[in-house]
Amino acid sequence: MRVDIGNALATVATPGVATVALEDLDDRVTAAHKQISTQRSTDTFGYAALNLPEQADADAIGDAIAGVADAAAVLTVGIGGSALGATTVSAATGPHETTHTALDNVDPASVTATLDRLPLAKTAVHVVSRSGTTTETLANFRVVRAAMEQAGVDWTERTVVTTGPDGPLRTLAREHGLPTLPVPEGVPGRFAALSPVGLVPAAIQGVDISAVLTGGRAGAASLAPSLFDCPAYAYGAVAYALGQRGARSNVVMPYAERLEPFAEWFAQLWAESLGKDGRGQTPVRALGATDQHSQLQLYRAGPRDKLVTLVQPRDREDRAIPATGADELAYLDGASLGAVLDAEFEATEASLAAAGRPTVRVEIDRLGPESVGRLLYMMEAACVLVGELADVETFTQPAVEWGKRATQGLLAESPMTSETAAVSDKTQYYID
Amino acid sequence: MRVDIGNALATVATPGVATVALEDLDDRVTAAHKQISTQRSTDTFGYAALNLPEQADADAIGDAIAGVADAAAVLTVGIGGSALGATTVSAATGPHETTHTALDNVDPASVTATLDRLPLAKTAVHVVSRSGTTTETLANFRVVRAAMEQAGVDWTERTVVTTGPDGPLRTLAREHGLPTLPVPEGVPGRFAALSPVGLVPAAIQGVDISAVLTGGRAGAASLAPSLFDCPAYAYGAVAYALGQRGARSNVVMPYAERLEPFAEWFAQLWAESLGKDGRGQTPVRALGATDQHSQLQLYRAGPRDKLVTLVQPRDREDRAIPATGADELAYLDGASLGAVLDAEFEATEASLAAAGRPTVRVEIDRLGPESVGRLLYMMEAACVLVGELADVETFTQPAVEWGKRATQGLLAESPMTSETAAVSDKTQYYID
Repeated sequence: MRVDIGNALATVATPGVATVALEDLDDRVTAAHKQISTQRSTDTFGYAALNLPEQADADAIGDAIAGVADAAAVLTVGIGGSALGATTVSAATGPHETTHTALDNVDPASVTATLDRLPLAKTAVHVVSRSGTTTETLANFRVVRAAMEQAGVDWTERTVVTTGPDGPLRTLAREHGLPTLPVPEGVPGRFAALSPVGLVPAAIQGVDISAVLTGGRAGAASLAPSLFDCPAYAYGAVAYALGQRGARSNVVMPYAERLEPFAEWFAQLWAESLGKDGRGQTPVRALGATDQHSQLQLYRAGPRDKLVTLVQPRDREDRAIPATGADELAYLDGASLGAVLDAEFEATEASLAAAGRPTVRVEIDRLGPESVGRLLYMMEAACVLVGELADVETFTQPAVEWGKRATQGLLAESPMTSETAAVSDKTQYYID
Repeated sequence: MRVDIGNALATVATPGVATVALEDLDDRVTAAHKQISTQRSTDTFGYAALNLPEQADADAIGDAIAGVADAAAVLTVGIGGSALGATTVSAATGPHETTHTALDNVDPASVTATLDRLPLAKTAVHVVSRSGTTTETLANFRVVRAAMEQAGVDWTERTVVTTGPDGPLRTLAREHGLPTLPVPEGVPGRFAALSPVGLVPAAIQGVDISAVLTGGRAGAASLAPSLFDCPAYAYGAVAYALGQRGARSNVVMPYAERLEPFAEWFAQLWAESLGKDGRGQTPVRALGATDQHSQLQLYRAGPRDKLVTLVQPRDREDRAIPATGADELAYLDGASLGAVLDAEFEATEASLAAAGRPTVRVEIDRLGPESVGRLLYMMEAACVLVGELADVETFTQPAVEWGKRATQGLLAESPMTSETAAVSDKTQYYID
């Protein structure tokens, strides 16, 4: 894995970072790295995430899933960090014979469609909630259990639980003797992909999750006190510096469909970790080459307020384009879909550079367990670095609590709280 | 359909729009509406999009698809505006027994996975390209044809073409006697959802596409010279005014999974139409309630540079949450998934208002052909209005041409052009 920051330099792009500014910033990176290393060494809250590849227990995961290893489908019941990491690892290590679906919303129509589609008797359920009280997850889990019962399936034989040391899910798991794995302590969900939270579905799908952790450890080994020696910090430092210079959005655009969930995962990591105190880049999920036909016009000719992060596997499975000769496009004869995709990647990068728009290229190895483990680790480290540089509390998400209280207040029909009062006092101005 | 701009007012939010400012803006809306109406009356380039619901020929579509109406799967081969509208209409009118997949990327791995998964003998192919020369579409169509031939399927019996009056696809369709539908003249792809471009897959799936057009006509009938009488213009005017006041991003967050593709469609509409001359809001795709656990922290506590557009169906199919009593969450007993989702919608809206962050609520009828037709029309009209107010060329996308030339130059290995030279002269600064 390597990072190319050439097109983010001030000589190419506006906003851009001068190399001398990067050299100045590197002193702060060195200090931040020292801070990060110290906090890691004591497993301090949040920073402990960067120790997961060494600590995650692949054997324990293997044991926990042994009873459902024959599944034809895996259903993750979880939301946010309890689903995105799993979906990312599963997709990046595909294709799989065993499908993976995340029930990560409470939309009745899509829950019903999912349950109608799945072969429930052959489905493994992975339910994930640290507290064991997440509204959406517990609601969906009730629905899933009932659907299995109705289909004559013993859900206690098909369910693996990942949760914290106590709470309703832990109790339920104990009562029914369900295989149970820990949510790593002191690590927010969005940083927990390299733990049972993110690895169980892939393990059921037959992925070598040890290789995912190997990739994570390679990421850990690549951390260094200077951004000039460390791709993760180089990425974080450049993203931070561009943010300071006006790049309010960070578009993450992988050129591989199997990394589409990675962009979702990144968006949570970036938004929830850094979006506080009136600061934080807006992560924007994109997909190459598709979004060239949707978003590129804006990226190239709109406001100069974006960094575009292009993620490119250096190697990929390919497929030839047959030379039918029926469509006059001679330049396609003898080409492959991969060659077209790679050419589009190069063209988009050059197109943005020619318009003076900053991009960073993140090159990864061929998609698979090891490369995705390393990519996730690298982006987590980059995010932690930006949190240090921006001086925000990277590992909390206080702004979502208000809405949770409001939701529960509305559903409980309990005495009016300030949150439910705010809902009923809403300023309305309808136009119809 | 109605729009609630209450939480975008300056009394609630920063940035926000004072009602007096809206009154001033309404003079410009009136002038823009007059301009739009005049251009519509002569089917002027682009503006003609707003006439599609009256002009699209549902019977002709019905005739063209008659030979594949028995399909078990529909495969759209198209990219950008040639795929997003179709995917949006199909999803919003689901669930369908006949699946719909868009081959809208040239990723070899996902193309192969799609072709392996589809029952090719029972698949209807809809290939869409106005020029008939779109690289990605033509490359994929070659691959699809070859895969069908290899599977012993006569692709000429399974293919419907939507294209312009001439070009390679038109020629091919003529040679093989394929049913062919027109891409509407003078309408960019992103504005062509209410035409064969967006309606063919849904029609094959058995959707009453006349009802989609009826919804579009209701949208057309609701246009009026004042934003205070017209939900589409109210939305557009408020989005524009907030953009002028610092809302650089427009987050579109539907509370219905079947509208997830709508957010993608909207993102193209907004980005490609308005992202030019150094201006244009960045559209950000989100999904309620899922992204409350991913993006809400940023929206509520990050920079005050966003409008959040919340899209809510007023009614929906529901599903009860069984009262298992096993998880201590008493407030879920007797509730339904729909009630939880609706409570989360209200909570998120109030949560953002309590933090003084602007939102607009777009309320639509229960999801289905008519409501999606109206929603698409409304957003197109809103976009055209913003283009008038911002004085940009709404219907062009000049900034994507450079990249197309570069891609073709790289693939053709033709003599060096300025674009391919830019690719090879790239500034590299690798860190590994």
